[in-house]
Amino acid sequence: MSARTSRTRRRRQPPRRAVPGTSPGQLTPPPDALHPIVSLFGYGPDEHLELADADPEAVREALGRWPVVWVNVDGLGDPDLVARLGALFGLHRLALEDVVHVHQRPKVEHYTDHIYIVLRLPDPGAEGLESEQISLFLGHNFVLTFQERPGDAFAPVRERIRGGKGRLRAAGPDYLAYALIDAGVDSNFPVLESLGEQLEDMELEIVDRPGRGAVVALHAIRRSLLNLRRGIWPMREMLGALSRDADPLVGDETRLYLRDCYDHAVQIIDLLETYREIAAGLLDVYLSSVSNRMNEIMKVLTIISTIFIPLTFAAGIWGMNFAPDSSPWNMPELRWRFGYPLALTIMASTATALLIWFRRRGWLGGGGAAPRERGSANGNGGPK
Amino acid sequence: MSARTSRTRRRRQPPRRAVPGTSPGQLTPPPDALHPIVSLFGYGPDEHLELADADPEAVREALGRWPVVWVNVDGLGDPDLVARLGALFGLHRLALEDVVHVHQRPKVEHYTDHIYIVLRLPDPGAEGLESEQISLFLGHNFVLTFQERPGDAFAPVRERIRGGKGRLRAAGPDYLAYALIDAGVDSNFPVLESLGEQLEDMELEIVDRPGRGAVVALHAIRRSLLNLRRGIWPMREMLGALSRDADPLVGDETRLYLRDCYDHAVQIIDLLETYREIAAGLLDVYLSSVSNRMNEIMKVLTIISTIFIPLTFAAGIWGMNFAPDSSPWNMPELRWRFGYPLALTIMASTATALLIWFRRRGWLGGGGAAPRERGSANGNGGPK
Amino acid sequence: MSARTSRTRRRRQPPRRAVPGTSPGQLTPPPDALHPIVSLFGYGPDEHLELADADPEAVREALGRWPVVWVNVDGLGDPDLVARLGALFGLHRLALEDVVHVHQRPKVEHYTDHIYIVLRLPDPGAEGLESEQISLFLGHNFVLTFQERPGDAFAPVRERIRGGKGRLRAAGPDYLAYALIDAGVDSNFPVLESLGEQLEDMELEIVDRPGRGAVVALHAIRRSLLNLRRGIWPMREMLGALSRDADPLVGDETRLYLRDCYDHAVQIIDLLETYREIAAGLLDVYLSSVSNRMNEIMKVLTIISTIFIPLTFAAGIWGMNFAPDSSPWNMPELRWRFGYPLALTIMASTATALLIWFRRRGWLGGGGAAPRERGSANGNGGPK
Amino acid sequence: MSARTSRTRRRRQPPRRAVPGTSPGQLTPPPDALHPIVSLFGYGPDEHLELADADPEAVREALGRWPVVWVNVDGLGDPDLVARLGALFGLHRLALEDVVHVHQRPKVEHYTDHIYIVLRLPDPGAEGLESEQISLFLGHNFVLTFQERPGDAFAPVRERIRGGKGRLRAAGPDYLAYALIDAGVDSNFPVLESLGEQLEDMELEIVDRPGRGAVVALHAIRRSLLNLRRGIWPMREMLGALSRDADPLVGDETRLYLRDCYDHAVQIIDLLETYREIAAGLLDVYLSSVSNRMNEIMKVLTIISTIFIPLTFAAGIWGMNFAPDSSPWNMPELRWRFGYPLALTIMASTATALLIWFRRRGWLGGGGAAPRERGSANGNGGPK
Amino acid sequence: MSARTSRTRRRRQPPRRAVPGTSPGQLTPPPDALHPIVSLFGYGPDEHLELADADPEAVREALGRWPVVWVNVDGLGDPDLVARLGALFGLHRLALEDVVHVHQRPKVEHYTDHIYIVLRLPDPGAEGLESEQISLFLGHNFVLTFQERPGDAFAPVRERIRGGKGRLRAAGPDYLAYALIDAGVDSNFPVLESLGEQLEDMELEIVDRPGRGAVVALHAIRRSLLNLRRGIWPMREMLGALSRDADPLVGDETRLYLRDCYDHAVQIIDLLETYREIAAGLLDVYLSSVSNRMNEIMKVLTIISTIFIPLTFAAGIWGMNFAPDSSPWNMPELRWRFGYPLALTIMASTATALLIWFRRRGWLGGGGAAPRERGSANGNGGPK
Repeated sequence: MSARTSRTRRRRQPPRRAVPGTSPGQLTPPPDALHPIVSLFGYGPDEHLELADADPEAVREALGRWPVVWVNVDGLGDPDLVARLGALFGLHRLALEDVVHVHQRPKVEHYTDHIYIVLRLPDPGAEGLESEQISLFLGHNFVLTFQERPGDAFAPVRERIRGGKGRLRAAGPDYLAYALIDAGVDSNFPVLESLGEQLEDMELEIVDRPGRGAVVALHAIRRSLLNLRRGIWPMREMLGALSRDADPLVGDETRLYLRDCYDHAVQIIDLLETYREIAAGLLDVYLSSVSNRMNEIMKVLTIISTIFIPLTFAAGIWGMNFAPDSSPWNMPELRWRFGYPLALTIMASTATALLIWFRRRGWLGGGGAAPRERGSANGNGGPK
Repeated sequence: MSARTSRTRRRRQPPRRAVPGTSPGQLTPPPDALHPIVSLFGYGPDEHLELADADPEAVREALGRWPVVWVNVDGLGDPDLVARLGALFGLHRLALEDVVHVHQRPKVEHYTDHIYIVLRLPDPGAEGLESEQISLFLGHNFVLTFQERPGDAFAPVRERIRGGKGRLRAAGPDYLAYALIDAGVDSNFPVLESLGEQLEDMELEIVDRPGRGAVVALHAIRRSLLNLRRGIWPMREMLGALSRDADPLVGDETRLYLRDCYDHAVQIIDLLETYREIAAGLLDVYLSSVSNRMNEIMKVLTIISTIFIPLTFAAGIWGMNFAPDSSPWNMPELRWRFGYPLALTIMASTATALLIWFRRRGWLGGGGAAPRERGSANGNGGPK
Repeated sequence: MSARTSRTRRRRQPPRRAVPGTSPGQLTPPPDALHPIVSLFGYGPDEHLELADADPEAVREALGRWPVVWVNVDGLGDPDLVARLGALFGLHRLALEDVVHVHQRPKVEHYTDHIYIVLRLPDPGAEGLESEQISLFLGHNFVLTFQERPGDAFAPVRERIRGGKGRLRAAGPDYLAYALIDAGVDSNFPVLESLGEQLEDMELEIVDRPGRGAVVALHAIRRSLLNLRRGIWPMREMLGALSRDADPLVGDETRLYLRDCYDHAVQIIDLLETYREIAAGLLDVYLSSVSNRMNEIMKVLTIISTIFIPLTFAAGIWGMNFAPDSSPWNMPELRWRFGYPLALTIMASTATALLIWFRRRGWLGGGGAAPRERGSANGNGGPK
Repeated sequence: MSARTSRTRRRRQPPRRAVPGTSPGQLTPPPDALHPIVSLFGYGPDEHLELADADPEAVREALGRWPVVWVNVDGLGDPDLVARLGALFGLHRLALEDVVHVHQRPKVEHYTDHIYIVLRLPDPGAEGLESEQISLFLGHNFVLTFQERPGDAFAPVRERIRGGKGRLRAAGPDYLAYALIDAGVDSNFPVLESLGEQLEDMELEIVDRPGRGAVVALHAIRRSLLNLRRGIWPMREMLGALSRDADPLVGDETRLYLRDCYDHAVQIIDLLETYREIAAGLLDVYLSSVSNRMNEIMKVLTIISTIFIPLTFAAGIWGMNFAPDSSPWNMPELRWRFGYPLALTIMASTATALLIWFRRRGWLGGGGAAPRERGSANGNGGPK
Repeated sequence: MSARTSRTRRRRQPPRRAVPGTSPGQLTPPPDALHPIVSLFGYGPDEHLELADADPEAVREALGRWPVVWVNVDGLGDPDLVARLGALFGLHRLALEDVVHVHQRPKVEHYTDHIYIVLRLPDPGAEGLESEQISLFLGHNFVLTFQERPGDAFAPVRERIRGGKGRLRAAGPDYLAYALIDAGVDSNFPVLESLGEQLEDMELEIVDRPGRGAVVALHAIRRSLLNLRRGIWPMREMLGALSRDADPLVGDETRLYLRDCYDHAVQIIDLLETYREIAAGLLDVYLSSVSNRMNEIMKVLTIISTIFIPLTFAAGIWGMNFAPDSSPWNMPELRWRFGYPLALTIMASTATALLIWFRRRGWLGGGGAAPRERGSANGNGGPK
């Protein structure tokens, strides 16, 4: 009960600007935005600086000192901070707006001296149609990222900067941007994997015991797949454009890596579509399971009724009170010597005849044959 | 009753020209067109003029005095007025026709010194397949809009002109046109949001109590989605063309803003298609809910019938009137010392055996298992 | 009965050439072709000539005298006439063949000094998959049209020629061709409108009283939509090509008008696809209506049976004839003082318990709740 | 029985090369290939030669003597013959392989001095997924065709060569190739026509008496449509390429004719897709017909049961044997003066009340209304 | 039971990199990778060398001696070996990664002096969604292949190298690569063939005895088809690119052969899609078979119940114990001379009337008509 109520209350945020028709260029953050925490990484091949809670002044200072500066903002609750960072990095006003209007589709926009990239990541804590928007700005010596909520999708990248291993520390900000995008795209895999496992469990369950819960769960899986799909399709487009179109901010080598990232997105889409088709197929299996069950139930009812209703009628006939004394025509069989055994014999013969007729129609024994077929059906997946 | 009748009566206007084959270039307004009200805005960076009810003469005068003039006509009932305004602004005859034939698809047409844009806005007061056509002409120093009905989609833009804040007052008519188009596109969001909420409510309802009303309501939602879709798809095309193709009347900066507007349209389409798939999925959930219910009902009927029909037959047997006096073969059990207890024992054993058989088939207790499964199914949306 | 028989007999004409593999270039008219009637219009800006029944000689004469000559042939039953007209206007052999093979798709073909255009018009008198083929040849000073049957699609154009109003009389044959094509395309609107009204009526009917007739009627509507679609899709292509590709026979101004005509075709397609989706949705509503009805019926049956079958069994028990005189164990309750009232009380309690159980399961009163829900569902179409 | 067995035995040939991974370039004919019969036509405008059974030597001789030589091979059972003909005409090895691997898709391949065309023709004698592969080589002065089985698709072309009428005898081998392809494409029409008639018959049958046979027959039709479609789609592509791309072996005039042939293919596809949609719609009609029937059956069962089960219970009550003699509480009504008439009256009233309730719910008389509605539904196809 | 358990345990490997966000360029093999076995072929037109178990040193030596060297690695369990071979052949780091991340889509990547090709082969031993990844590197004088598991797809190619027949030994490494790709693509045919046979068997089974196993088996087939499809679609793209785009490593002649291979892929896709549609159609047939069965069952139940329930009621009436002695109104018919025969006659008449009514409704004899129709339906596949 309470679970349902809370679910109703926690309405998904409507994906729209506060008021249609308001002036663009205004930085109105979403109503439930978190207070921002700014973290900063500055690094070169040999050294690195990490600040867990930086202010714009510290950012300005780092920009002058480190070959690559990565500023990450968790939470969009302070439009002034966004505006100040925008001014500091010289970002376009329209891009800044899109940062706080958190229902953008994934896209890439090329401005004169920076690239603005929007990613959407599955939000594993949420259900249904939600996903998180990540905004990423790539400039000559910086990467600036905005996240709606503090998340751990970028944690491995942080580790790699700290560890100093790999080519990350030696490469420029474009490679850092690639690493972050790659981490973002790959964060779809665990979610997909979990959905794939749920589909597999569901398959066994549906065949064995088709319950109403299965359809609701299937619907939830399909909605999650729809959600992932809504995020990943434009990411694919965006990655295709990034890896294809020349831009002075993205090196050729990095474009090769982005191509790899594009391949991952295509692979995710392939898997998604396959899961969608499997889910649709499972619904068919479920529906036919249900009608088979109904069929079986009806068969039992019909066999029992069809056998006993005529017999009960016969018993009713001989239970009538027509007075044999009043007339020789009134139920003389009640006084025959073998009246009762004869009646029982007639009833038994009727029942036997009906049973034989049912067996001929395949209604008896048919229910038992199905499980055996099913056993062999399980091995049908591959060729013999 | 009366609701239905009124719905039947208020037939949707058929989307066609008055008579097929009539000469093009004739301005025959739709039969139920409202009497037009002309409002006028003239503004420059510092000052602005607002006339709530202007006549063509006032328009001509304003055109010479203000950098940007916006004339808005609510209602298409007066073809002469349309013709006079057309002559005043030098508009093409074919475009004027399309203004009064209010079933145009959204489109953009480039004439020598003006651009003609058709928008379709969801009509929140109407149901089903209706939407409102907005015609917008953009010239060197004017924007001319025609609406079928007085609406409030443009109210925030009016406010911005009056307020003088933002870049609207300083920019040219192309930016005004953008602001109006943007307001029009964004007016889809509240409608979509409402449909999304209805879908969510329906989801809970369908799982809990699948009633016939749900399917009808689902159908209504799907029809509304179809309607929105019919309007927004060509708007996307149109916005793509506007933001892509160079035209001297639309500045580069405004094209960037139109690109943002295009993104909104794509986002609306994404959401629409997602809702369409969710609605289709809900129908599946509904249908399976209904067959599950039927299954449960049949199970109860079958269990009760299958247990009691044989017992009733047995009672019928011993209720027969074969005369024990006439022959020792006639129902001697009726006079046995423990005849009645034996009969009751046989009946009880039969019932018990049948109950055990039902439990083995999973027909008993199966109904109770479903709700428990469902509880866990609700948490299946995200990965574990 | 007779309606059905006649329908079976009036087989649709198979859409094929008489015998596959026969030599092309042979003018074999369809077997049921009507005898042709040739009508002729010759006109210039100031005068016009109209001949209701012209012969080729009159046509030749008119060609030399009038700026624009329009020859219309109703009926294709005379291949010689077609050949003679073909020779007179210098038409290509392959095009002439297509005139008499009346199952062409709409298309446009550019020959050296004439354009051959095939239109398909919905045939409002026919049902199901039929449509009429109109062939139109456009030359430097003539338009030649062939219709399968005398129809009224072109009547308004005739009126406009006679009336001399509009730009038709002043313009060249390309404008006449446009006017005819436009009349042809627009003749889809009344058919669509009628189908839309049928869909709306059906919607009310299906929700209120789902009968078998509804599905058959829905199928008929869908078939009509398929038929219209088969005609209009290639017309759209054809109009796109005509309005896009330069051809000396079609003026720039007329191409602008043809673009308008193209927009109409796109609009028809939009409406068609929307209707197709609505029809598909109605089928879903219908099917769920039917299963809801079945559910209700089953519920009534189950409630009645489940209550009375055990009671009848109890009555059967006490109707058995075990002789109380033979043994104190044999049905002593029959002689108890309050035996009968007790029996009735037991029966009443059982029935009451079952009714309470049904109410708990939501089987009682559930049927009454649906109409109330439905009432509110009707208002779900638009946003609140 | 025997029909089914033979169907099982006559397995469709799997569409694969003998062993995956074997060297290409080996001419291994299909296992059930027929022994080849070579026929030869040589012709010029004035004369022609026809050999019903030619050997390669005769072919070589004819090649030197006649302007156009057409060699037709019926049956692919002799790989040596294929190789010898290949050498004689200078054909590419890969093309020869495709001749004997009879599961090629229709395609066109341009070699230096010949064109290789693969056609697929519906095999009217077979059922389900089979079609026949026709290979056609077009060279400077020859056409060489290979058929799997002797068929009559080319018979009309043979007649035209013999008759000497039409432009066939005067034109080059490209026109002959066109004539053969055209005959091949058009051989789809009779098959389609037959399927269309079957669909129409089925429509009447499904509405009147929906039987299980209908679905099986519908499935067979859909499979045949799938099969035709698999053949005709690539033929369309192929014809498009042939009529579009310049090749010295195909004259401009012939390309015009091939364009006509392309139109036929598009027309066949249109019809196919329409039939597929109609077949899908018929399945919906069928399923709803079946559930309507079920509904009707259930209604009858429910009405009868609901009326008689309570009455039977009442009869059971008064059939109980509580002894009125033992106590004044025991069934005193049995001895009332009007006990029996009262009982009958109660029963009759109950039945009447139930009947009234059923009529109110629309269960009585509803079945009779449907046929009347259906009658009007049949006329719904066209607009009113 | 145990089969199911093992199936649950043997979870499909999730298709993702070990940890999202880890540095690219790390060669982490899949957890269940087999220990690699390196086999080597070196050959020229006249001689060849075969090593069943080679080490990198042997490979380096062979590279200098033979015109074409083919190194095949079965099993990816040793990342060092992969790295060493990569260094030996000068392969790109990103490509090597993709070798061990075995969930790549089929693709082709052109590096400066080698081509990297990924194939996916159906894994006939596995079921459901699995397939094997084959990586193939083509260089100036070598082909290097990596397989996940030792398989026999390449066995015929090995035979051809050993046998020295065909053009394989004389041609370069590009032809070898072609031969391997061709063997890989064609390995789809036996799997498809087996699925096609299963579909055909299922068709007979579903029509004759629709059991629950059929749907589960159909679902398994559909999943296998989805799996094949996921592998073959990108192979088609890849082959298209390979056969179209010029690359110095692939000769023109080989490109012609690859075009043939591309045709095979298209043919596999055609067949796949056809099978998918047939499987979907079979589900429809199945569902309608099930509802037909249900219909038949219900009909029997209804006929029996409807006939006997009123009769039983009548018998119950005359079994009531109203005392005829107490009043002349109490069941006087029990003492009529022909009371009993009259009662029996009334009952028989009722039953007869009901049977006639059933026959009129088509409920009797309708079940017997279906098989006869079905017989003729079987012959519906082709035209009459």
